[in-house]
Amino acid sequence: MKDEHTDGARVYAELRGADRAAEMQDLAQGTGAEAVIADLSLEFVFGKVWGRGGLDRKQRSLVTIGVLIALRQPAELENHLRVGLTNGLTLAEVEEAIVQTAPYAGFPAAWAAARALANVSSDRKDAPG
Amino acid sequence: MKDEHTDGARVYAELRGADRAAEMQDLAQGTGAEAVIADLSLEFVFGKVWGRGGLDRKQRSLVTIGVLIALRQPAELENHLRVGLTNGLTLAEVEEAIVQTAPYAGFPAAWAAARALANVSSDRKDAPG
Amino acid sequence: MKDEHTDGARVYAELRGADRAAEMQDLAQGTGAEAVIADLSLEFVFGKVWGRGGLDRKQRSLVTIGVLIALRQPAELENHLRVGLTNGLTLAEVEEAIVQTAPYAGFPAAWAAARALANVSSDRKDAPG
Amino acid sequence: MKDEHTDGARVYAELRGADRAAEMQDLAQGTGAEAVIADLSLEFVFGKVWGRGGLDRKQRSLVTIGVLIALRQPAELENHLRVGLTNGLTLAEVEEAIVQTAPYAGFPAAWAAARALANVSSDRKDAPG
Amino acid sequence: MKDEHTDGARVYAELRGADRAAEMQDLAQGTGAEAVIADLSLEFVFGKVWGRGGLDRKQRSLVTIGVLIALRQPAELENHLRVGLTNGLTLAEVEEAIVQTAPYAGFPAAWAAARALANVSSDRKDAPG
Amino acid sequence: MKDEHTDGARVYAELRGADRAAEMQDLAQGTGAEAVIADLSLEFVFGKVWGRGGLDRKQRSLVTIGVLIALRQPAELENHLRVGLTNGLTLAEVEEAIVQTAPYAGFPAAWAAARALANVSSDRKDAPG
Repeated sequence: MKDEHTDGARVYAELRGADRAAEMQDLAQGTGAEAVIADLSLEFVFGKVWGRGGLDRKQRSLVTIGVLIALRQPAELENHLRVGLTNGLTLAEVEEAIVQTAPYAGFPAAWAAARALANVSSDRKDAPG
Repeated sequence: MKDEHTDGARVYAELRGADRAAEMQDLAQGTGAEAVIADLSLEFVFGKVWGRGGLDRKQRSLVTIGVLIALRQPAELENHLRVGLTNGLTLAEVEEAIVQTAPYAGFPAAWAAARALANVSSDRKDAPG
Repeated sequence: MKDEHTDGARVYAELRGADRAAEMQDLAQGTGAEAVIADLSLEFVFGKVWGRGGLDRKQRSLVTIGVLIALRQPAELENHLRVGLTNGLTLAEVEEAIVQTAPYAGFPAAWAAARALANVSSDRKDAPG
Repeated sequence: MKDEHTDGARVYAELRGADRAAEMQDLAQGTGAEAVIADLSLEFVFGKVWGRGGLDRKQRSLVTIGVLIALRQPAELENHLRVGLTNGLTLAEVEEAIVQTAPYAGFPAAWAAARALANVSSDRKDAPG
Repeated sequence: MKDEHTDGARVYAELRGADRAAEMQDLAQGTGAEAVIADLSLEFVFGKVWGRGGLDRKQRSLVTIGVLIALRQPAELENHLRVGLTNGLTLAEVEEAIVQTAPYAGFPAAWAAARALANVSSDRKDAPG
Repeated sequence: MKDEHTDGARVYAELRGADRAAEMQDLAQGTGAEAVIADLSLEFVFGKVWGRGGLDRKQRSLVTIGVLIALRQPAELENHLRVGLTNGLTLAEVEEAIVQTAPYAGFPAAWAAARALANVSSDRKDAPG
């Protein structure tokens, strides 16, 4: 593991699980655009931003979920709805976060987010215990 | 006051102060697009969304700030940075919320939000105690 | 049915048909983010906005189609292309509305809308008479 | 005048007045990015898109206003609120078009549009009769 | 072929190949929104914009790829990643163009673009020589 | 200077001049959201992204200008139009880059960019030689 990835890989494992963190580190050592973005994500997004103090992880998830709903990035939103639940937001809190976006980002964005959460919830029910 | 505004006007006064809430109710009783939007804001945005349980006001502010940074709506963002501080977020927490948006909404959006917060902070310093 | 849904459910049935309006009301009585958004949609979006006078339904559809093309929300756009046809816009008028967005929202958004309309048209041809 | 500008310059004069149409043609004959965009606007946007049949000018304005509110382009929106009024939409219809965008593009976008319309209306009152 | 399509059809064939250019011309002679947008694309986008001097095609591709990543238009982005490679950008240059967007458009947009490029690369490997 | 800023401060000075680079480093050592974003910009945006090989600086400017036009971030766009000229793009090339965005991001975005370039050009003419 590159030294620059140490902090980010630890944070990433806490947010997404050890298996995905290992995959992300493997990806970051490859070549091509995905490898560079994985490398910068581990060092910068997870090591330097998510690793900061001053807001707890549940609060960082609420901000991130708000951003991703407004940006209409459904695939990345599903990832961060999962991260929010891992970070300790209850399902009811994530639902309310989605409702809160409707007047600001508009109903179509909120509907899309509610459907993304339904996908996430059904995956979690199907997963082995 | 219209009955439909009762809940929203109370919530709005808690978020923005009694004077602005009175102005908003006056505006809502006028004519034109601003009046209709003020009317729907009081009834729906503040009465039916901000008035819900399940997330506390600090959490609702974090989501809203994330949405408005991503939407690049600077005037409305300044309002909601103030609301976040009124709702009990510390200045340091609002600063971190802005930092959290940089990797997702991009640095230009985060810079614009940091400048909006600087405007808000300097207004607050100038205000009589 | 909740009293607050009466107007919206009637308008929704006119825009989307009685079967979908019944489904929407059922959804609005459930739990979770989709239920809350359905509830707020019936009361606010369909009851308080689509139910207003001052613009006819064809005109409201033209504005809404313009917004959804610019927001790049293809699923919701397909719904509103259907609503526009139900509201009395001809297929040729909806086609021209899409063409009108090209210089403002850009050609990629207009292409995506033209493909969405092709999906809607082919569904309508397949539907039993 | 370039032949390619004939249709567009006529349409532009109908939408914005003869003085602005003359300025636009002058601009289109200059150099630099603004000149090229003016040139392409006259030929393409006004000659080939606004000049089409199949939707009347009021309908084209409703679509365009919807797009510009959703894109958060306030300067261009002010121009097209004026064009809408010139095309025969009443002030009340333009107000309702703005209200219609609130649930789809969100309240901040609708507020910004209502303020843009207030600017346009106050300019029109100040103008000599 | 319509005279207005001559330049655009030639440029389009250079960017996308002769087969697709023929399809595009066929499409442009049909009816409906796709036909009109194909017609305007050939005349305006490919004839009047891509056909201009002052920037070479590799440079035009870099600008276009930047725009489409920021607009979150994945289908059109895939087309323009292919066009960039046809225009002489190396795979490594396209990869770096995607990396360059991460700090400005955000990591989710850059990830989506990196995946779009992976699709394009795997199609190219599968294609007969 | 923090070690993590060494590469970024050098690149920033090449893009924006030594005076602004010194201001940016001062800002990065302060407190508040602007300080953190300046710190992350120096380390990540300028040190890790702009400092990469594989695309030359003119090419990185073309991508960045495309992104910022599409994101409708006019203040940041003015900065990057200047950077593009510093990186060796000619004024005519920057003008063509703006024209290239019109069909993809729409004419309002291209107009706003052309006006931003006019501001930049007039500042440059006013500056002492």
